Amino acid sequence: MEPDRRTLEEMAARWLGEDVGRGDVTTGAVIPASLEGIARIEVRQDAIVAGLVVAQVCFDLASGGAVSCHCFVTDGNEVHAGDVLARLQGPLGPILTAERTALNLLGRLSGIATLTRRFSQEVEGTTATIVDTRKTTPGLRLLEKHAVRAGGGSNHRFGLDDGVLIKDNHVAAARGVEEAVERARRAVPHGLKIEVEVSTLEELDAAISAGADAVLLDNMGAETVREAVKRAGGKAILEASGGISLENVRRYAETGVDLISVGALTHSAPNVDVALEVEA
Amino acid sequence: MEPDRRTLEEMAARWLGEDVGRGDVTTGAVIPASLEGIARIEVRQDAIVAGLVVAQVCFDLASGGAVSCHCFVTDGNEVHAGDVLARLQGPLGPILTAERTALNLLGRLSGIATLTRRFSQEVEGTTATIVDTRKTTPGLRLLEKHAVRAGGGSNHRFGLDDGVLIKDNHVAAARGVEEAVERARRAVPHGLKIEVEVSTLEELDAAISAGADAVLLDNMGAETVREAVKRAGGKAILEASGGISLENVRRYAETGVDLISVGALTHSAPNVDVALEVEA
Amino acid sequence: MEPDRRTLEEMAARWLGEDVGRGDVTTGAVIPASLEGIARIEVRQDAIVAGLVVAQVCFDLASGGAVSCHCFVTDGNEVHAGDVLARLQGPLGPILTAERTALNLLGRLSGIATLTRRFSQEVEGTTATIVDTRKTTPGLRLLEKHAVRAGGGSNHRFGLDDGVLIKDNHVAAARGVEEAVERARRAVPHGLKIEVEVSTLEELDAAISAGADAVLLDNMGAETVREAVKRAGGKAILEASGGISLENVRRYAETGVDLISVGALTHSAPNVDVALEVEA
Amino acid sequence: MEPDRRTLEEMAARWLGEDVGRGDVTTGAVIPASLEGIARIEVRQDAIVAGLVVAQVCFDLASGGAVSCHCFVTDGNEVHAGDVLARLQGPLGPILTAERTALNLLGRLSGIATLTRRFSQEVEGTTATIVDTRKTTPGLRLLEKHAVRAGGGSNHRFGLDDGVLIKDNHVAAARGVEEAVERARRAVPHGLKIEVEVSTLEELDAAISAGADAVLLDNMGAETVREAVKRAGGKAILEASGGISLENVRRYAETGVDLISVGALTHSAPNVDVALEVEA
Amino acid sequence: MEPDRRTLEEMAARWLGEDVGRGDVTTGAVIPASLEGIARIEVRQDAIVAGLVVAQVCFDLASGGAVSCHCFVTDGNEVHAGDVLARLQGPLGPILTAERTALNLLGRLSGIATLTRRFSQEVEGTTATIVDTRKTTPGLRLLEKHAVRAGGGSNHRFGLDDGVLIKDNHVAAARGVEEAVERARRAVPHGLKIEVEVSTLEELDAAISAGADAVLLDNMGAETVREAVKRAGGKAILEASGGISLENVRRYAETGVDLISVGALTHSAPNVDVALEVEA
Amino acid sequence: MEPDRRTLEEMAARWLGEDVGRGDVTTGAVIPASLEGIARIEVRQDAIVAGLVVAQVCFDLASGGAVSCHCFVTDGNEVHAGDVLARLQGPLGPILTAERTALNLLGRLSGIATLTRRFSQEVEGTTATIVDTRKTTPGLRLLEKHAVRAGGGSNHRFGLDDGVLIKDNHVAAARGVEEAVERARRAVPHGLKIEVEVSTLEELDAAISAGADAVLLDNMGAETVREAVKRAGGKAILEASGGISLENVRRYAETGVDLISVGALTHSAPNVDVALEVEA
Repeated sequence: MEPDRRTLEEMAARWLGEDVGRGDVTTGAVIPASLEGIARIEVRQDAIVAGLVVAQVCFDLASGGAVSCHCFVTDGNEVHAGDVLARLQGPLGPILTAERTALNLLGRLSGIATLTRRFSQEVEGTTATIVDTRKTTPGLRLLEKHAVRAGGGSNHRFGLDDGVLIKDNHVAAARGVEEAVERARRAVPHGLKIEVEVSTLEELDAAISAGADAVLLDNMGAETVREAVKRAGGKAILEASGGISLENVRRYAETGVDLISVGALTHSAPNVDVALEVEA
Repeated sequence: MEPDRRTLEEMAARWLGEDVGRGDVTTGAVIPASLEGIARIEVRQDAIVAGLVVAQVCFDLASGGAVSCHCFVTDGNEVHAGDVLARLQGPLGPILTAERTALNLLGRLSGIATLTRRFSQEVEGTTATIVDTRKTTPGLRLLEKHAVRAGGGSNHRFGLDDGVLIKDNHVAAARGVEEAVERARRAVPHGLKIEVEVSTLEELDAAISAGADAVLLDNMGAETVREAVKRAGGKAILEASGGISLENVRRYAETGVDLISVGALTHSAPNVDVALEVEA
Repeated sequence: MEPDRRTLEEMAARWLGEDVGRGDVTTGAVIPASLEGIARIEVRQDAIVAGLVVAQVCFDLASGGAVSCHCFVTDGNEVHAGDVLARLQGPLGPILTAERTALNLLGRLSGIATLTRRFSQEVEGTTATIVDTRKTTPGLRLLEKHAVRAGGGSNHRFGLDDGVLIKDNHVAAARGVEEAVERARRAVPHGLKIEVEVSTLEELDAAISAGADAVLLDNMGAETVREAVKRAGGKAILEASGGISLENVRRYAETGVDLISVGALTHSAPNVDVALEVEA
Repeated sequence: MEPDRRTLEEMAARWLGEDVGRGDVTTGAVIPASLEGIARIEVRQDAIVAGLVVAQVCFDLASGGAVSCHCFVTDGNEVHAGDVLARLQGPLGPILTAERTALNLLGRLSGIATLTRRFSQEVEGTTATIVDTRKTTPGLRLLEKHAVRAGGGSNHRFGLDDGVLIKDNHVAAARGVEEAVERARRAVPHGLKIEVEVSTLEELDAAISAGADAVLLDNMGAETVREAVKRAGGKAILEASGGISLENVRRYAETGVDLISVGALTHSAPNVDVALEVEA
Repeated sequence: MEPDRRTLEEMAARWLGEDVGRGDVTTGAVIPASLEGIARIEVRQDAIVAGLVVAQVCFDLASGGAVSCHCFVTDGNEVHAGDVLARLQGPLGPILTAERTALNLLGRLSGIATLTRRFSQEVEGTTATIVDTRKTTPGLRLLEKHAVRAGGGSNHRFGLDDGVLIKDNHVAAARGVEEAVERARRAVPHGLKIEVEVSTLEELDAAISAGADAVLLDNMGAETVREAVKRAGGKAILEASGGISLENVRRYAETGVDLISVGALTHSAPNVDVALEVEA
Repeated sequence: MEPDRRTLEEMAARWLGEDVGRGDVTTGAVIPASLEGIARIEVRQDAIVAGLVVAQVCFDLASGGAVSCHCFVTDGNEVHAGDVLARLQGPLGPILTAERTALNLLGRLSGIATLTRRFSQEVEGTTATIVDTRKTTPGLRLLEKHAVRAGGGSNHRFGLDDGVLIKDNHVAAARGVEEAVERARRAVPHGLKIEVEVSTLEELDAAISAGADAVLLDNMGAETVREAVKRAGGKAILEASGGISLENVRRYAETGVDLISVGALTHSAPNVDVALEVEA
C-alpha cells in the first residue's frame, strides 16, 4: 500500500504549485539558469526519518529530472542530529525552488514516524500493535500512514470504504448493535470484517454475541480493557482507543489487547527540524 | 485573501474523496437514507476557533446541500471547553460521512489559531507583529494562513511568486548582496519589495546599502536584533526569524523589530480536540 | 455504497462530453433553443431496470437543470415490453442531445440487472448468494455493481484495495499458501478478511489451516464444491467461481456453498432495448 | 483516428485507478517489490483480437515502464484458442496489479472485433459496408470504434459534432424535412454532409429532394431497402439501420445499399475469454 | 454550436484563476465584503458586440451568483461609442475582481465580430460567404468562432476531427491528389466531405476529377478564382483563401466563389475598447 | 518567471486538444504513420521572435517526443522576412497535426514581442521603462508577458494577488485614498508595495502623502505627467498609463516618468506571419 510513483508525482505537483504559483521570482531573478550546485539535506535532531521518496519527487519535478539525489538513509531509519539524509546535485535554481515543499514534507512525516517509534517501543514485548486512525491531515493520508509504518506502527483502515466500523451513532440509528451488525453483514462485500465501537463491557458482550469480528473499546481505562480481553476470550479482535499517551500506553499494552490506536500519531506529532544546505 | 467558495469546495471535495473513497460502507449499510438528525460540534478544550467555513463546506458537499449548519461562533472567536460551535440538521448519513474530514480540519486550524493567539498576546503593546512562514502543510497553505489571521497574526508572502526573499544561497550565487538585490530589482515587477535574509549586522548594513526594502534577521539573539533596529534606523522593515518561542518572543518584540516570524505556528501547533455529537 | 450525486455528475459530464464534443450540430441547427417538449423513455422488452438515476443526471446536466424527469419505476423493478420508465419535460434540444448517452447507460445497466435476476432466481431457496467479480467495464464499475444489486445479487470487493484475494500467482511468489496468508495478515489493515483462491481440495485444506477467512474454489465441478463444503465445515466462507452458467448454477447452489461469483453478469450481459419517444 | 498515446494513457490511468484505488493490498503484502517474472497473455477461444495497445499501456503505467511487453499479433489479427497474444517481462507486482484492467479491455474489445468480423464476412462481395453506431459504452467510444475497424467495419460519426443526422424529432420540430435540411445547411460548417433519417419511401423522396447527402433508412425490411436504392438512383448515400442481425444482414447487403449500421457491434458483443498466466 | 453553460463556466473559472491567483489582495483589503454597488459596462467605440454571455459568467462565478447582470444588447448587435452594454448589481468586491477578465473577453471578441461585420458587408449581394479559419487564439476557438457568427460570418471546421482538408503536404505524401482523396474517402466517416487545397487551376481539375467535394483555392488572384469558378462548374464547393483583405475581398466575392476564408478575422482583429464604471 | 516545462506542457496539451479533438482525420487517413520528413518554420516578415519554446513543446507532445527540433534563433532575436526559425525532423503526421497550434502561438507571441520592441526603441535613452498590463488574452498571460520581456519590455504584476493597485473604485469605497492605503497596508503581506491610481495632480499629492509606494497616472497628458514627476520628487515610483501610442510615447518618456504601461502590447498587437514548409 505504498503510494506509487504516479500518485506521488500528482501530489508533489499540486504542492509545488501551491508554493511556486506563477514562478519563484527570487530564484528566477538572482540565480542563473545554468548555475549548477550541490546541496545536502540535514536533520537537526534525533529522529526516525520518513518522506525521502516524496521529497525526491519534488526535486525531480521542479528540475524536470535534472537534479540527481543520493539518499544515505531510507524511510524508517533512525538518524541523529547532524546526519546528512541526502545529497542533491544539479541546477541550483530548481533545488532552491523545491526546497521548502520538500522540507515541509520531510519534517512532518519524520515527526510522525518519530512519535510512532516511541509508542512502538513502549509496547515492545507485549501482544499489542500500535495503529493509526483517520485523524490525518486532509490530503496527506497515504503519506502519513506510510510514516506510521516507517515508525513501526500498523495501519487501521485507509478510508470509509475499506473497513467497517459501527459507531455509537450507527448503533443508535439501527436501534441496537445486533441489527446494526446484521445490516452491515448483508450489505458489505464479504471480504470486510465488521468492527463495532463500544464504551462499556455490556456493549462488548452484545457486540460479540452479534457476531462482530472486531471491537473498538472506546475511552476505557486499562483495567476495564483487561477485563474486556478476558470476556472476549479471543472471539473478536480487540482495539483500545482514546486517551492513550506515551505515559499510559504500556499499561494498555499489557492487558493483552490486540491493537492500540493513537490519533496523536498523525494529528499532533511535532515537526522534525530538517534543513537544506548548499555546499558550493 | 480569504479563499473563495469555489476554492474551498474544490479542496473539500478532494479531501472528502480521500476519506470516503468509493463510499462510506458502514453508514451506507446501517443508516437509512431517509433518516434525519441533529448533531452538534463541540470543542473539548479552550481554544481560538478556525475552520468553521470549510467544515460547513464539507457537510454541504457530502449532503448535496441537504444539511443545514448554524454556527454559534465565527473564526477567530475564543471558545471554552464544552462550547457548542455549530449545530447541524439534516440527513444523518452525510453528517456521519463528512464528520472526520470536517473535524480534522477544525482541529488543525483551531490549533494554529490558538497558538498564534498566544504568540500575539505575548507581544501586545509592542511594535512587533507576529507573522507566519512558508512552513505550512502542503495543500493547506491558504487555510493555515487564514487560521493565523484568525489567531491575530499577519501573513508573510503566500508563495514564491508574490514576494522576494533573497536568502544566503541567492546571495552566494550572485556573489554579493548588492548584485543580488540589483538583479531582483531589474527582473521582478515593480510592485514587489525586495527582502534580504542576513545573519550578521555587517550583512544587515550591506543589505540596507544595497537598497533592500526589508531585511530578515536570521537566528539572531534578541540583543543583536535590538542593535539591528538601531542600525537600520527605519530605512528597512526588519523581521526577526528563527529560534523564537513563546518563552522568548516578548524579548524580541521589545527590541522594536517590525515583524517576528514563527514557523511553529503552522508546523507544530498541537491539534484542538473537537467532536461531533448526534443529539437525537 | 451507492455512487453519490457528485460522482454521478462527474461521470455523466465526461460521458456527455465524449458524445457531444464541441456541440450537437444537428440539434443546434435544427431545433430552436426555445422549443419545449415532452418525451418518454420506454423499454422494448421484459427486463429488470437499472440506471434510471444516472440517466436523469444526463438530462439534468445537458439542460442545466431545465428538464424535469418523472420516473414511474425505480432501479430493481421488473418491467415489461412497452412500459414507460420515465417522462421528461422541458427544452427539447438538450433532451435530444443527451438521449443517446442516457439510453446507452440504461440499456447496459438494465442488461446486467436482468441477467443477475435470472441467476438469483435460479438459486432461490438455497444458501448461496450470487456475487459479481472485477470483470466489469473499465470506468463503469460503480454503476455495474449497482446494477448487480438491483438485480438481486451481492457485490464482491470493489477494487484491489478493499479486499484481499490471494491467487495462485501470489501463492507461488510466497512459496506456499501459509507464508502468503501470513504476509497478508501482517501487512493489511485488520478490518480486511483474507481470501485465498484454490483449485484443489488439498489446497483448500492448506488454505483453511493457514487461517484463511474465505476460500475461492476456482473452476471446480459442483461435486467437488460439495465435497469442499463438507471439508471446510464452516471454518471459512466458500465461494464457487469459474464456468458457472444459468444452466448449472442451481447445482452449485445446492452444494451449500456460500457465494457463487459470475463474471458474465458484467462482461457479457446483452443490452436491454430502451428508447426515447418525443410526444409532442 | 487512432487514439494517440496521451489519450490512451489518460484513459488507462483512470481505469487503473478505478480498480487499484489506494493500492493493491494483496500484491503489496505478498509479492516482494524486487520479484521479477514472465507472464503470457493467452486467448481461450477463436477471435479477432483488439485492444493490445491499450493493454500494454496499462502494464506500462502500473510499472512505471519497467514491464516490457512483446506482442505476437496485432489488432485485427485472427487468433485461435490457446494462442499467446503477448509476453510480459518485468516486476511481477505491477503485472498482477494491472492484469484485470488489461484483460477487461482485451476481452471486451476483442469481442467487438470478433462480432464485427462476422458481420463483415456476411456481406463480402456486395457493395455494402458494415458501420457502427453511437450505441457504444460510455467512456470507451474511441476504443470501441477502433475495435470495429479491427474487425473490418467502418466508423459512423464519432459524436454529435462531427456529423449531421437529422432524425424524426428534428424533422418534426422543423415542420418538415426541407426546412430541417435547409437549417442544417445554413448553420453547420460546409465540410459536413447532411444525413436524414427516414422510415418510409415517401420520406426518402422528400429527403433527397431537400438535398440530403445521405439518408438513413430506419427499420425498413430488405425489400423496401431494395426499392429505396432504386428510387435514390445514386443521388444520396443510403444507410440501412435497425433490426439487422447476422441472419438477415446478407439480404440487406444484396439490395445495393451503401452502408449497414449495427448497434449490436458495440452494445451486445459477448466478451472474448483472455487470461494472463505467470510462467515462472 | 454555441458553447454550453458548463463549457463557459469551465473556461471562465480557469481564466479568472489565471488573473486572481490566490486572491485579489487589493479588493480584499480595501472593499468591505458587505459593500454592494452598481456598475455599467460601456463601449468606447462603434462596434459589433460579442462576448456578453461569457462576460456574465465571469461575474457570476466570481460572486457565487450574487451579482445580477442586465444586458441591454445581445451578441451581434451594433453598438456605438458610449452605449451601455450591461448593468451589474451586487457585491462590489467580486465585480471589481472579475472586471479585467470579463473586459478582456468582451474587447477581443467584439473586435472579431466588428472586423467580421466589415468583411461581410463588403461581400453583400454576392454569392460569397465569409468564413473563419483555424488561425484562432489557442484556448479561445469556440468563443472566437461564436464571435465570427455574431459578426455575420460562417464557420469553417472547428478542428482537425470534424472536417477533411487535404493540403499540399498531404498530397505530396500520398503521391498525388487522387490517391490522397481515395485514402480519405476510405478512412473517414461518410458524413465528412473531402476538401482539397490547390494552388493552380491544373490542381483544381485534378481535385475535381478525384471527386473532391470542396476545393480551397490557395493564394490565387481574383481573376484566377473567377476562372476556377468557371472550370468547376458547380461540381465542387469553392473556397478562396490567402491574401484577402478588406480592400480586395469584394473582387473575390464577385467571382462567384462560394466561400472566402480570412485568417485575420481571428488573428489580427484590433481590440474594442470596453470599460466598467461603478455608478454609486 | 519563465513558465516551466510542466506548465508549458499542460497548456500545450490543452491547446492541441482544442484543435485535434478526437484525432486529425485528414492526416490519419492520408499520411502513413511510418512516413518521416523534414520541415522548416519560416517567418514571412521582419519581427522579434517569441514563442519558440512553447512551439517546440507542441511538436513534442503531438509526436510523443519523436520529432526533433533545432532552433536557429531564440526568443527575443530580431528576424527578417524569409528567415528560418527552426527545423523539425521526424514523423510527418504529428508535424502536420501540431502545425497550426504551434504557428498560432508563434504568430501571436512574436506579434507582441515585435510591438514591444518598437515601443522600447522609442524610449531608448530615457529613464522610462515600457511595461505591460493585465489586458492579456485569457489563458495566455504567462506567455504574453514572456513575449513582452522578449521584446525588451518589463512586466507589471502578473495577477491580482502579487501586487496592490488601488483604483478609483477602491478609493471611493474606502472614502478616501488615505483610508484605502491604510487598509491595504494592514492587510497585505509586507512584501507588496502599495500602488495607487490617480487622475489628477491633487490626487497624486494625496496618494503620496498617504504613503503610496507607487502611483499610476491615469490618462494624463505628457505635460501633466512632467508636472507629476516634479511634484513626486522621487517619493514614489510613477507610472504613466492610458492613451499612449507609438506616436506619443517618446514625449511621455522624456518627462522623467519611471514606467509607461501600454495595454495594446498584448491586446492589439498584429499577428506575425509564420509558416511551416515540409522540405522533402
